[in-house]
Amino acid sequence: MTWTESGPLRRFTDELRIAHEVDVVVVGSGAAGFSAALSALREGAEVLLVEKMSTLGGTTIKSSCWAWYPNHAGVRVEGHVDEKDDALRYMARLSRPETYDPTSPTLGLPAWRYELLSTFYDHAAEAAEALEAAGVHQTSLPDFPDYYSFLPENRTPRGRTLKPAAPDGQPAGADEFIRQAAASVERQGGRILTDHAVRGVLVSGDAVVGVVAEHRGEEILVRARRGVVFGSGGFAQNTERRGDHLAAPILGTCAAPGNTGDFLDIAEALGSPLRNMTYPWMTLMVLEQALSGDPAVKSLFHPPGDSMLFVNGEGDRTLNEKAPYNEMAQMLQRWDVREATYPDLFQFMVWDQGCQDLHANERPANPIRPAREPAPHVVGGATLDELAERLAERVEQLRPRVPRLRMGPDFAERLKASVARFNAGAREGRDPDFHRGETPIEQAFNALFTGGTRDERNPVLYPLDERGPFYATIIVPAALDTKGGPQINPRAQVVRFDGMPIRGLYGAGNCVASPAGKSYWAAGATIGPAVTFGYIAGASAARAPVVEIEPAAAVPA
Amino acid sequence: MTWTESGPLRRFTDELRIAHEVDVVVVGSGAAGFSAALSALREGAEVLLVEKMSTLGGTTIKSSCWAWYPNHAGVRVEGHVDEKDDALRYMARLSRPETYDPTSPTLGLPAWRYELLSTFYDHAAEAAEALEAAGVHQTSLPDFPDYYSFLPENRTPRGRTLKPAAPDGQPAGADEFIRQAAASVERQGGRILTDHAVRGVLVSGDAVVGVVAEHRGEEILVRARRGVVFGSGGFAQNTERRGDHLAAPILGTCAAPGNTGDFLDIAEALGSPLRNMTYPWMTLMVLEQALSGDPAVKSLFHPPGDSMLFVNGEGDRTLNEKAPYNEMAQMLQRWDVREATYPDLFQFMVWDQGCQDLHANERPANPIRPAREPAPHVVGGATLDELAERLAERVEQLRPRVPRLRMGPDFAERLKASVARFNAGAREGRDPDFHRGETPIEQAFNALFTGGTRDERNPVLYPLDERGPFYATIIVPAALDTKGGPQINPRAQVVRFDGMPIRGLYGAGNCVASPAGKSYWAAGATIGPAVTFGYIAGASAARAPVVEIEPAAAVPA
Repeated sequence: MTWTESGPLRRFTDELRIAHEVDVVVVGSGAAGFSAALSALREGAEVLLVEKMSTLGGTTIKSSCWAWYPNHAGVRVEGHVDEKDDALRYMARLSRPETYDPTSPTLGLPAWRYELLSTFYDHAAEAAEALEAAGVHQTSLPDFPDYYSFLPENRTPRGRTLKPAAPDGQPAGADEFIRQAAASVERQGGRILTDHAVRGVLVSGDAVVGVVAEHRGEEILVRARRGVVFGSGGFAQNTERRGDHLAAPILGTCAAPGNTGDFLDIAEALGSPLRNMTYPWMTLMVLEQALSGDPAVKSLFHPPGDSMLFVNGEGDRTLNEKAPYNEMAQMLQRWDVREATYPDLFQFMVWDQGCQDLHANERPANPIRPAREPAPHVVGGATLDELAERLAERVEQLRPRVPRLRMGPDFAERLKASVARFNAGAREGRDPDFHRGETPIEQAFNALFTGGTRDERNPVLYPLDERGPFYATIIVPAALDTKGGPQINPRAQVVRFDGMPIRGLYGAGNCVASPAGKSYWAAGATIGPAVTFGYIAGASAARAPVVEIEPAAAVPA
Repeated sequence: MTWTESGPLRRFTDELRIAHEVDVVVVGSGAAGFSAALSALREGAEVLLVEKMSTLGGTTIKSSCWAWYPNHAGVRVEGHVDEKDDALRYMARLSRPETYDPTSPTLGLPAWRYELLSTFYDHAAEAAEALEAAGVHQTSLPDFPDYYSFLPENRTPRGRTLKPAAPDGQPAGADEFIRQAAASVERQGGRILTDHAVRGVLVSGDAVVGVVAEHRGEEILVRARRGVVFGSGGFAQNTERRGDHLAAPILGTCAAPGNTGDFLDIAEALGSPLRNMTYPWMTLMVLEQALSGDPAVKSLFHPPGDSMLFVNGEGDRTLNEKAPYNEMAQMLQRWDVREATYPDLFQFMVWDQGCQDLHANERPANPIRPAREPAPHVVGGATLDELAERLAERVEQLRPRVPRLRMGPDFAERLKASVARFNAGAREGRDPDFHRGETPIEQAFNALFTGGTRDERNPVLYPLDERGPFYATIIVPAALDTKGGPQINPRAQVVRFDGMPIRGLYGAGNCVASPAGKSYWAAGATIGPAVTFGYIAGASAARAPVVEIEPAAAVPA
């Protein structure tokens, strides 16, 4: 196929004014993009990294930047090996539960998904080591469990996740990861340009030979001699695309504000089909924060609190508030077939004064704020009846922006019954309805976010003091980012409708189709594959022969 | 954009051997295809209809061929009007429950979806009348309710569905509809070719100018002067596509065996994005029939029986067995987030001798077969314990083909408890757990399929005789067909990634993106839009100017 100029495709001609020419252009400055840039530099390529926004880091810098790498050096201790067969079974079991078959050569997965999982396993540890060698440090979380650590398929239930580290080895955050990565790129002679939004690609014959970027209203053309690697993130900030592709509703996202899925337009114009578009990396958010449009807005990974519960719009408790975020969001998306509604979509997180006193802190994603700080998303009431009244007022205020937000007529009564039932269990240290606190990951998250333990039998449970006062906020399902896009092959080349790779085009991270399906294997299941496929993409592009420009004679007049 | 030869795209040149040349080529002989062919003929076009299989009728002929047309002549009686605003609210409310907003100009829908619903309303009655004028007869079902007739948005809850009729007006089946349509096409000078599988399109410049068909191993090229209308059905018979696109598992389909999604490959190669790929038109099937590969296999629209219940693999009753099929399939797809399983995916339909005697008949989709007939999908037992043993044997036999099929260790005990609880309600004429029989559509379906009524208080409920014997079969979610594909505009033109129509290319029915989302408004919600958009597509193509071939000079050597 020979692509010609249209929409996001621009035919390369000698008349074009080329602003930059390098071996490898990397689009995006999150984990995938930086991993690709560092990998290409390591192979000796001349590299330019372009970022749409004015600051670096993409969605990665908004996260904790934990990264999941099967069989990395830190789990190969005391003779333990995270065997490939085991790791693949765990990933496949969760990625495709409906077709998973341990006796099948592809474990019941379509071939391309199996191949990408296999490639991920084969290169994850090596990708993490390459980061370290480039001066981007990570450190172990040896005791942190996978999200489904209890499944029989999981033979390495703890320790596959790494987190960023300072040069001295001390644990650090995402900002440090990005700072180290950017410094390493520049130290190795790579260039980084912010405020360059890639809207299209330069094509010649059947190959991609550069990018078309917009920089402060001006068009900047960049020739990539060996390849373009997209690590430009998903489409979570594009509400039209969300509506077109997602299988269930989300009401917000904490993806980087630039994640509008620009690469999907390019892929569609190139005839590269989109896959795994159905489910995003899911999480929870406070409704008002989800609506705010604040680019710094964060995900509510783990609702803190012991004397705290969620009820739906009817006032009924319907779920385990401490389940991992990707799973909890799916519970909020429960579809009531009979009524054709999503009855659990809006959750009312309710806590008492004891919980407020113990668990309030300044962590950005914590809805329980210290008393001295304004908390416009929190509603208070001396009694549960008053709390319900205040919530009803809040719902009316928000309704114009959220037409489906509703409270049932018996909300206050049912809330009181829900609290009474929750309290009866909590007094025994148990949650007979939803088994809150019974899995390793719930205890591990609690340990990270708790303000203290009041009941050693089950640290995540404590009865609400029925004398009041009470607090509440509204919680909705949201996306960290999406994970669908064009398909890549094990060399991280973007493939066309017929499975053939597009010369000069590579992808990694949330802008391409993830083999994870709707699953979220563990903390860092987003960034581990992003780093790994970025590493593969950068090396593949750097090692590729120069993609020559087709002679102009072949271009029709 | 100028497409050049690749995969399913073939460039038109003077050297090609063109087997047929007509104004309009129609691909597919179901409701969409025949409606398009008749509409193009009515406009005076020369028409060729090509069908992949050796018999006519596609998935339509496997259905009851009921068709849902808002505001058709039959509902405009005694001064009633099925107002556009009302009909759109009903459709939008169900198609996009998460964003539905009665105060929004597009009712909260993305613009393209709203426009297609609006177009459907505007032309549905006219499309039904055009069929009648062409000699394809339909008759009213004035009392038959929509599937969500009880919603406040539904102001015309009954009568929007028509069914086929013989020339004398008597009700008839799908075979009669297809017979009349084919006869009308031929009477008007249109030609019909079976065994012609369209694998690609002829392109010239930026337009589609014909099709590439395979006929008994030979390639047949057809020039379409004014347009090609695809009415070629969905991708339900393509398990790879199902795995790539569907949001939840199905285990079988009763779509026509040719429905492998060939048009998706063509659309992707043309750079036309796919939409609404997530949810098919859902139904139920008997597991062994779903696995059989029998091209004649039918959907289980409505499980007959009063002393009959469904239990899941644990032996628990979890749903209303009489809910409309699209909804019941979604219940079977319930995702257990905690265990990462689909616990209700396999349902065990259990009935007693009284039910067997009353409700057995020869209707193809009825799992309750007359005693004289072999029923290899049915397992029997003198007691519930014995029934459970026989089912366990059956499960073991099927496991190699269905690795996820399982029965819990307490199945027999929990089945007995489920029967006891069901019976306690049924003796009172009630189903306190799942409200079986309480909506108009359940009673209407029961009236169609019942062998008789034993309890006038609730004809769909009756206690099982605990003395036995008992019967059972395994039921799974399935698809009538899918409803995703490239997007069309209100003229039924297939659009590109940039929203511009592709000259010469039209689509209708299950091969293009439905604006219905995951909803199924009523009986015939599949075929009503297929007829309507087929009607629009045929007329649009017939009225279009001739799509000229680009001069050969512009084609590169």
